[in-house]
Amino acid sequence: MKIAIIFGGSSYEHEISIVSAITMKKVLKKSELSFIFVDKDRDLYLIDKEAMKSKHFSSGEYKKGKKLTLQQGGFAIGGLFGSKEVSVDVVLNLIHGRDGEDGKIASLMEFFGIDYISPRIEASVISYNKLYTKLFAQSIGVKTVPYQHLSKSDERKIDFDYPVIVKPVRLGSSIGVSIVKEPTGLDYALDVAFEFDTDVLIEPFIEGVREYNQAGSKSSDWELSIVEEPHKEEFLDFEKKYMDFSRDSQVLKADIDAILEKKIQESFKKIYEPLFEGSIIRCDFFVVDGEVMLNEINPIPGSMANYLFDDFEAMVGRVAANLPKERKIVIDYQYIHSIQSAKGKA
Amino acid sequence: MKIAIIFGGSSYEHEISIVSAITMKKVLKKSELSFIFVDKDRDLYLIDKEAMKSKHFSSGEYKKGKKLTLQQGGFAIGGLFGSKEVSVDVVLNLIHGRDGEDGKIASLMEFFGIDYISPRIEASVISYNKLYTKLFAQSIGVKTVPYQHLSKSDERKIDFDYPVIVKPVRLGSSIGVSIVKEPTGLDYALDVAFEFDTDVLIEPFIEGVREYNQAGSKSSDWELSIVEEPHKEEFLDFEKKYMDFSRDSQVLKADIDAILEKKIQESFKKIYEPLFEGSIIRCDFFVVDGEVMLNEINPIPGSMANYLFDDFEAMVGRVAANLPKERKIVIDYQYIHSIQSAKGKA
Repeated sequence: MKIAIIFGGSSYEHEISIVSAITMKKVLKKSELSFIFVDKDRDLYLIDKEAMKSKHFSSGEYKKGKKLTLQQGGFAIGGLFGSKEVSVDVVLNLIHGRDGEDGKIASLMEFFGIDYISPRIEASVISYNKLYTKLFAQSIGVKTVPYQHLSKSDERKIDFDYPVIVKPVRLGSSIGVSIVKEPTGLDYALDVAFEFDTDVLIEPFIEGVREYNQAGSKSSDWELSIVEEPHKEEFLDFEKKYMDFSRDSQVLKADIDAILEKKIQESFKKIYEPLFEGSIIRCDFFVVDGEVMLNEINPIPGSMANYLFDDFEAMVGRVAANLPKERKIVIDYQYIHSIQSAKGKA
Repeated sequence: MKIAIIFGGSSYEHEISIVSAITMKKVLKKSELSFIFVDKDRDLYLIDKEAMKSKHFSSGEYKKGKKLTLQQGGFAIGGLFGSKEVSVDVVLNLIHGRDGEDGKIASLMEFFGIDYISPRIEASVISYNKLYTKLFAQSIGVKTVPYQHLSKSDERKIDFDYPVIVKPVRLGSSIGVSIVKEPTGLDYALDVAFEFDTDVLIEPFIEGVREYNQAGSKSSDWELSIVEEPHKEEFLDFEKKYMDFSRDSQVLKADIDAILEKKIQESFKKIYEPLFEGSIIRCDFFVVDGEVMLNEINPIPGSMANYLFDDFEAMVGRVAANLPKERKIVIDYQYIHSIQSAKGKA
């Protein structure tokens, strides 16, 4: 299968997307891969497989490569004398954060009629915005960690006991996130979070909470990964998460009983279907007193959470073969014709 | 000001978008207008102002015109020997329904760095999906008509007394909407709605409810239209709404007291800010026992609800001068550099 991996983007997670894409090169061994880089100015470049090294991007050398344009049906290598299409069966969206997770890449693929693995537009907006994730989860009966929403202009008054965790509403990879142990630390944490976003969520920080990750997708049937209990420090800061995005070897299944595993899987399925059809996502759950609560949805998880799947590459193939299809709309100008004929113009 | 009106789209409302665009030609008299047509295959065409007649599109004659491509910063007229940019200050998104209201046009404009008047991606998804509109309104303390959500596979059991109104979750302009007076009519109405969407909303149909429309935007200050009490038949079917999209003369202010007017305006402002910044929208409210309830948000109202504004064209100019700016993200490869230097490669 010809898979085009799109990565980079105008995102705080631009660099970890590069790391994720390099990891995919190692993981997707049997596929015919091409790499499409969205640079910081959102120019598109076709990158040779051999050039997929971090320095190629940090040095700016990629700019010597082939620039791409989007046209109906695919990407094209532009040029003065016409253009040549890049041959692709499916695009794998690997842009973390803005552009990739906020619905832009999904929109581009839909508009230009390109098959793609990624959350669709609605799923992107619902998962990129942590406040909307809460509203959505509540509406489908999935519990979440309690929260308080603050906008920049709101009074900085907290409903929870300390410690609390402060998160910008729209970013991933712990950017702008702080744990606040004392009231005196709140202002600084909010200032940091508001550096990145107009809105923040405040949640109680649950000391020693058990966390479990479930990744998955749906092809003709469910494609669930093992449940992982991530190795936890207080929480992963950006640099540790960054290293985390290069994981490519399988991890061990969490040591949990069948009942809890089933609860986690059922919560995942409720979230996934139908909103996330066409994507491979990872949901992070907290478990408190046997109750499963959604912490967050990772719509484009680091290195696609490949290390949680038994045969990631085969799964990608099955997902690609079962993508949701856009509803066909027939446009036949029947209203315009009837108006013209009423006016005697037809 | 150079305004490019983008219209058409792969949408059930493709034809009424053409009508809206032709109306804009009459309304925006002082601006330098260009017209960008998204045809049913989502090919982009630059349309001469003189050709802005419905027959130009229904006959397929537009295909003889200039095809456009998207590139960073704007639209370009393609050609074998390079391309020429279409000079535009701001794009006015006038695609009703899919493509225009679901976040695709917003995404294209953001990705290619083109200034535009339209709901942004999040606002598009929240208003295009009537279920999300309900969740959003509840979260900001704006009352809505009570509702029940049904998916295709759900049991067809209704919680409300009849009559009820059945609406596809994602469409505008009353497409697929039915009023059901008796239980015997439910199945057919649901079949019709599910023809258009995977999800429907059921609401009690409130006989003789007072309906008020408030359009508006925000530039350096609020830009609120008059409040209109739309001329109501049982409800507007597609053909009547279609004619409605060509309105270009001002209407009369609804005969309501200052308290109700203020309540409607305050509800509009709560909904609009900050989510809808950069757009001109119309909110339709129901009033029951003096209580204002959101019926729906029209993110791209027919002919931009120009007939509700005193000086629509001047308002468009002020909105264009006060568009929300994208947050600048600096990408300096500091993490990649530090990893390279740790590995001794720098």
